[in-house]
Amino acid sequence: MVDPAFYDRLGDDANPVGLLGSEVDGGFTQYAAVADSRAHDVTNSPLNDEQLACLPTAYGTAMGMLERAGIVKGDTILVTGASGGVGFALVQLASARGSRVVAITTSAKRDLVAESGTDAIVDREKSDLSAEISAAAPSGLDAVADVVGGNTFEWLLPLLRERGRWVIAGAVGGPVVTFDLRRIYLNNRLLIGSSMHTPSHFLKLIDEANEGRIQPRVAKTFKLTDIHKAQQVFRGRQHVGKVVILPS
Amino acid sequence: MVDPAFYDRLGDDANPVGLLGSEVDGGFTQYAAVADSRAHDVTNSPLNDEQLACLPTAYGTAMGMLERAGIVKGDTILVTGASGGVGFALVQLASARGSRVVAITTSAKRDLVAESGTDAIVDREKSDLSAEISAAAPSGLDAVADVVGGNTFEWLLPLLRERGRWVIAGAVGGPVVTFDLRRIYLNNRLLIGSSMHTPSHFLKLIDEANEGRIQPRVAKTFKLTDIHKAQQVFRGRQHVGKVVILPS
Repeated sequence: MVDPAFYDRLGDDANPVGLLGSEVDGGFTQYAAVADSRAHDVTNSPLNDEQLACLPTAYGTAMGMLERAGIVKGDTILVTGASGGVGFALVQLASARGSRVVAITTSAKRDLVAESGTDAIVDREKSDLSAEISAAAPSGLDAVADVVGGNTFEWLLPLLRERGRWVIAGAVGGPVVTFDLRRIYLNNRLLIGSSMHTPSHFLKLIDEANEGRIQPRVAKTFKLTDIHKAQQVFRGRQHVGKVVILPS
Repeated sequence: MVDPAFYDRLGDDANPVGLLGSEVDGGFTQYAAVADSRAHDVTNSPLNDEQLACLPTAYGTAMGMLERAGIVKGDTILVTGASGGVGFALVQLASARGSRVVAITTSAKRDLVAESGTDAIVDREKSDLSAEISAAAPSGLDAVADVVGGNTFEWLLPLLRERGRWVIAGAVGGPVVTFDLRRIYLNNRLLIGSSMHTPSHFLKLIDEANEGRIQPRVAKTFKLTDIHKAQQVFRGRQHVGKVVILPS
């Protein structure tokens, strides 16, 4: 499996600055030449090729979030947008490291999200979401892994424990937020920005794939010639898991 | 010297939950009985009693900020509100650990702030403060130690380097801010809340006092019977350093 990221320097903790298929051509090729340091052996992974195709960006981004936030066994972590590509990966990867995972999703996607290894699911459409979450995490939240942002940020912040970590990698709910800085400093909380993965995060992801501790969910597959249909499905946001394009 | 903090548990990294003289009586007594674990030997410190009196809250808070943000030798750190009690302490403590310190203050207080060990001072009243700071820190800011908050938070955030740390312990400029979450996650930045000090932070502060690596500035002293005058001076905000009350 190829690490799609291009980094700003050598070293295990380099920052990604571009992606194969985005800043560099090669995303849809059946064969591409890459530096051997970026090709990782997954021949012994129990995952099939389509599942492996789900990993690089969504699971890489999720791994980066969990690593940067220092999520460990026993932590109670809330995942926003748990039916999305990164959210679903967050649930599986956090669960694989022994965290207790509370997931936010819609009732329509509840059953499929439950397959990912959640300990509790709260319904985003419920009127008193704070109370739902408090009930699902009676000892409080050690961390929030957030890809939603927007007003979620303001109302969820008080539910974080003293020294709790809020790690964020996206803001599909809106990037501009208003909040009270005292929510951060009076409780020694941390807000951790997380952009994709580092080389060492990617190696950890390869380990998870080879050990079969994660089960990426393929929502639907399309031939490359049907990529426009795939885009429509993706934009419809009714799917859970990843939409996979097959090169031939 | 007495650690004024009461902690939520035993252990080196406990959280402060109250202070002698605030949640517990005893702030103005000439003698007070405390647990021996909270009394630290400073008899060999080159600092005099009035200087030592400056340390517990302002320097303790500043030490907590630098430790939580992991400020090390060679870091370039910006200190907002550098003439205030915590700001002045931040400059000295950061400088003592070999950081390059850029301080924000007003022109009226510039000379006194310079005594604290700054590498560069920028004038808060200048029209293009961003450009001033960029000129003073041409390689970018590794960290911002902030006690001001308010709109400072929004316009300064972009000046932080990739993976830069913003540590905050107060918001005299206003606690409620509006900002773009992308400023945090696209650059892997951290926002670190810091409330006072832990027991281990306080021990580090005692070391600094005993080694004489810091020089607290006593702005003015008052007898306890003149405490109202002291309050007026404090509220007038014309001083640099700490206002010290003498018990007799």
